[in-house]
Amino acid sequence: MTSTVTSTTAAAPAVPRGLTGVVPPVCTPLTPDLEVDVPSLLRLVDFQLAGGVDGLFVLGSSSEVAFLPDRHRATVVDAVVRHVAGQVPVLVGAIDMTTLRVLDHAHRAVRAGCAGIVVTAPFYTRTHPAEVELHLRRIAEQCQTPVYAYDLPVSVHTRLDPQMVLRLAAEGVLAGLKDSTGDDAGLRDLLTARNDAGLSTFSVLTGSELTVDNALRMGADGVVPGLGNVDPHGYATLYRHAVAGEWDLAAREQERLLRLMRIVHVGSSARMGRGSSALGAFKAALQLRGVIDHAVTAPPQIQLDAAEIDAVRRTLVATGLL
Amino acid sequence: MTSTVTSTTAAAPAVPRGLTGVVPPVCTPLTPDLEVDVPSLLRLVDFQLAGGVDGLFVLGSSSEVAFLPDRHRATVVDAVVRHVAGQVPVLVGAIDMTTLRVLDHAHRAVRAGCAGIVVTAPFYTRTHPAEVELHLRRIAEQCQTPVYAYDLPVSVHTRLDPQMVLRLAAEGVLAGLKDSTGDDAGLRDLLTARNDAGLSTFSVLTGSELTVDNALRMGADGVVPGLGNVDPHGYATLYRHAVAGEWDLAAREQERLLRLMRIVHVGSSARMGRGSSALGAFKAALQLRGVIDHAVTAPPQIQLDAAEIDAVRRTLVATGLL
Amino acid sequence: MTSTVTSTTAAAPAVPRGLTGVVPPVCTPLTPDLEVDVPSLLRLVDFQLAGGVDGLFVLGSSSEVAFLPDRHRATVVDAVVRHVAGQVPVLVGAIDMTTLRVLDHAHRAVRAGCAGIVVTAPFYTRTHPAEVELHLRRIAEQCQTPVYAYDLPVSVHTRLDPQMVLRLAAEGVLAGLKDSTGDDAGLRDLLTARNDAGLSTFSVLTGSELTVDNALRMGADGVVPGLGNVDPHGYATLYRHAVAGEWDLAAREQERLLRLMRIVHVGSSARMGRGSSALGAFKAALQLRGVIDHAVTAPPQIQLDAAEIDAVRRTLVATGLL
Amino acid sequence: MTSTVTSTTAAAPAVPRGLTGVVPPVCTPLTPDLEVDVPSLLRLVDFQLAGGVDGLFVLGSSSEVAFLPDRHRATVVDAVVRHVAGQVPVLVGAIDMTTLRVLDHAHRAVRAGCAGIVVTAPFYTRTHPAEVELHLRRIAEQCQTPVYAYDLPVSVHTRLDPQMVLRLAAEGVLAGLKDSTGDDAGLRDLLTARNDAGLSTFSVLTGSELTVDNALRMGADGVVPGLGNVDPHGYATLYRHAVAGEWDLAAREQERLLRLMRIVHVGSSARMGRGSSALGAFKAALQLRGVIDHAVTAPPQIQLDAAEIDAVRRTLVATGLL
Repeated sequence: MTSTVTSTTAAAPAVPRGLTGVVPPVCTPLTPDLEVDVPSLLRLVDFQLAGGVDGLFVLGSSSEVAFLPDRHRATVVDAVVRHVAGQVPVLVGAIDMTTLRVLDHAHRAVRAGCAGIVVTAPFYTRTHPAEVELHLRRIAEQCQTPVYAYDLPVSVHTRLDPQMVLRLAAEGVLAGLKDSTGDDAGLRDLLTARNDAGLSTFSVLTGSELTVDNALRMGADGVVPGLGNVDPHGYATLYRHAVAGEWDLAAREQERLLRLMRIVHVGSSARMGRGSSALGAFKAALQLRGVIDHAVTAPPQIQLDAAEIDAVRRTLVATGLL
Repeated sequence: MTSTVTSTTAAAPAVPRGLTGVVPPVCTPLTPDLEVDVPSLLRLVDFQLAGGVDGLFVLGSSSEVAFLPDRHRATVVDAVVRHVAGQVPVLVGAIDMTTLRVLDHAHRAVRAGCAGIVVTAPFYTRTHPAEVELHLRRIAEQCQTPVYAYDLPVSVHTRLDPQMVLRLAAEGVLAGLKDSTGDDAGLRDLLTARNDAGLSTFSVLTGSELTVDNALRMGADGVVPGLGNVDPHGYATLYRHAVAGEWDLAAREQERLLRLMRIVHVGSSARMGRGSSALGAFKAALQLRGVIDHAVTAPPQIQLDAAEIDAVRRTLVATGLL
Repeated sequence: MTSTVTSTTAAAPAVPRGLTGVVPPVCTPLTPDLEVDVPSLLRLVDFQLAGGVDGLFVLGSSSEVAFLPDRHRATVVDAVVRHVAGQVPVLVGAIDMTTLRVLDHAHRAVRAGCAGIVVTAPFYTRTHPAEVELHLRRIAEQCQTPVYAYDLPVSVHTRLDPQMVLRLAAEGVLAGLKDSTGDDAGLRDLLTARNDAGLSTFSVLTGSELTVDNALRMGADGVVPGLGNVDPHGYATLYRHAVAGEWDLAAREQERLLRLMRIVHVGSSARMGRGSSALGAFKAALQLRGVIDHAVTAPPQIQLDAAEIDAVRRTLVATGLL
Repeated sequence: MTSTVTSTTAAAPAVPRGLTGVVPPVCTPLTPDLEVDVPSLLRLVDFQLAGGVDGLFVLGSSSEVAFLPDRHRATVVDAVVRHVAGQVPVLVGAIDMTTLRVLDHAHRAVRAGCAGIVVTAPFYTRTHPAEVELHLRRIAEQCQTPVYAYDLPVSVHTRLDPQMVLRLAAEGVLAGLKDSTGDDAGLRDLLTARNDAGLSTFSVLTGSELTVDNALRMGADGVVPGLGNVDPHGYATLYRHAVAGEWDLAAREQERLLRLMRIVHVGSSARMGRGSSALGAFKAALQLRGVIDHAVTAPPQIQLDAAEIDAVRRTLVATGLL
């Protein structure tokens, strides 16, 4: 695990403060024997870059970070950072239960040359707001890289306190926030408070891929769309429309992407969890579009069957992607 | 991380099937600079053995497994397995989010010579009963060691389906269950079904350290008491009384231990989470009893202050331990 | 709704302080057109009294209190209080969302001559420990009757703070507690604290019908078993064994009742909720035993089908009740 | 309770199908001795009408419906329906645990002349999607009035299945939906599916008062803003801007309202729940603005203190309302 990541970065990371635009959480293609399929991964990265994305986020939820052993994590970070070679910033998820474990992941990512790390509150263990704050401070102190807080209550089972987020933003502890709460009212409240505090370089990115136009109108800096794996061009288009103030065009593109998003429901809920269905559908779509070689997801996820994959195909056709 | 654990086991592991008695989840003493304090750890192990325990469980919740980086996990397993040298079975928690990550921990534990591994359902990721079952089957298939399922909804946020547990018990996939649900009615239902199915070698251990006498009366095979770190003699006494059918004596001992357990509440809930308070109290008690050198817990846990530690001391005095 | 309950009580209520023994939450038989089936209800009451119960609890969860309109609630209270005529205390659930609504139910119950009322924390609205305490104090102040707190997190979605319960017990605000948390460790902690505080007349009743022997060993005063509807003799026998210190006999009876309890799972979880299955099974069992005329449950509960009722019948045969 | 509501409606209710615009959930002013303060209530209604609202919703969460005894509910419905006299539709919340109890409230509201009723899924009792659907169908069948489903997971602890909502919309069982999930992505998915199905008369109203512009852009028909009590003119202005396609003006007004909304946090979380703080702040603001006489909220809510009320005042000044 260690030899691949101790190499120093091949290129100076792009400045991550003030990160904006479309930053997809890159899927991790696997081979049938559950190794990282690096050629497919690099094709996926190229597909994203060709689609016009502004950054990449590896080892997030859509990357199956929770399913990847450390050696796979290292392979992904190393391969992507080298391949991107500074064209866009590469953020890396340092997803683990508590501080020391997160620091191990973070140090490896920094050594590999990432442009920033993304961390959640502690999970599995019961926690407390004072401990969440200590956790984020300790990580930022010990990593010489921008730290983005990741608010993902569906996985972490707690939410970040917005007052704490703003306090750490003001002190420069945090460089940004990925908000995957799905709570757009809370997002607006945070954005307003951020702007009132003059913290304009604190990047707030939404993880809600179906209300991106709304988030951008409210002042969010960008989006981290899982669905962007399948259609990076769509999200880049949506973002360009938004920047140009063409909100009706943005909304129309967002609605097309909403229809595309329905692929996440193809997997039977009698047979599998919602994660298996969603990640399986993203990978099936990427395979159908010719970007990656295999749609396999890591255990214990259940694989989509032929009928379910065919439902993905029909949606791709209906939304103009096949 | 790897070199310390690849050594083969020093002693044949005790047979873990049909595991019974008191199997404390061993705390992990740390130094002030957050390394594993191995001398303290081994003194703690000796203290447990002298207390009369029937097995040891390292890398469980009371061991701060969620807080320990992999190199600490390896150090703990290696040191304890060598030191115990087969006197009692040593179970090892392979606690991580999903299958491949758990397998990495499990393989290291097996190579180190553990007598069995303890695994939860997937967490952090959303899951499904079919995926939980696949997860446990895959792990058991790929590890040549007994697998104990660990039902800990407070951390994992789902519960194990008892029908699935019994099915995997009948097929020999699982060697036992650690039930930390706190649901003694569910435990009784499971024990009755187990007995009806003639699965008497399937070990059911309760993690509810305040109702051990009840669990044993209902047919549980043993207990995994976090509080056993502080008073292994107490739990061993309780267990001996139970085996002898001296239920009034068992209840009296359990009540003394219940009063001791109140140390877990010493930490101010305004300053820290319940885990920080409980694990801090266990370690403070062990330091006060002269077993370990430092009461420090791993970040981001908040440390007990002097007044809180004094409250631990008073409870130890009141329950006859100081 | 009002005329039926304004009549004063026919008989002095039995003293409810220090309530002990078996106090079943009485099912509410309904006619096919969803009126209270009073003749069946009174037969059920007689069946309970003949079974040797020590009190009755009407308008609890097993009574479908959440499903009964106010006029049905009044009919039940009036009919049962008159019929029992002081032979045993009759407690009445005053189950509603907040204080003023609970007080309306409580005043009606007091006017009807109940021996005590049973109240939960506020629900539906978000609440706070200070509000829960104010709620209980206000109700006790305004009702000249003993008040029992009902801890039922599965319905209320919060738990009662044990320190608050003990404080209100010490001040005489509360007469007792019905603990339906399923948390026997918490129950033991509370019982120990109660005894240490010398609050022996504060009645603690468990609602966990599968661990009654354990609860009684730990010092609980009695049990409120939903399953007692179907087999009051069983619970009375269990209680008598416990009082006599015949714990092995108590455990054997408890195990028989545990097997009987499996009727609550007969209803298909694809078709109905767990409540529909459980309450449907209790009523089906009572109909099969000839106690009530109809097994119908109130909407929107789904009714058991013939195969499911037959599964109830087979369990009744297997446990010696048919 | 009954005599006041059996009177027939004074005016034909406005047609509620296709309900659009601003429909505030009207607060229920109380006297210090906890009676409905009808003069204040009618002044509040006039204040809303003068503010330009398109409908009124009485007995919703902001009305403290969970806190009002039935006689208060009847007083409110009767007084408001008569006073409004058909100028705008008056919807009435029929909020209770299960079908028969909801029907009692619904029948009273229909007799009083409401334009529609608003109902949640069952709560307190455990439920199942099949039971939620049966519940809504039964209520719609038995009430000759439009039925609006109310999706409020923070209170009900389950969510409505969107497929079920659309099915009942297509069959004419439901007239509309009040979406208080805070999940704007889910709202957009539902709106898109509704439009695709040609169900344009099925009204979808958002209860998320901080993202109203977004909801309207996405196709929602209107909003039910608790904060509209305090500033109906603001929400009416926002809505007019939206209808005129003046989205920047709408966003600016929404941001002003967002700043006003911060009054809900004035109450100390050490002393009270979030509901006490929010409803107390709404009422304090209405008293400060001279609309109602008393800011008292129903027990067991904790009252705001003078400093907290002063914080409300300062926010009103800052947002131009005082």
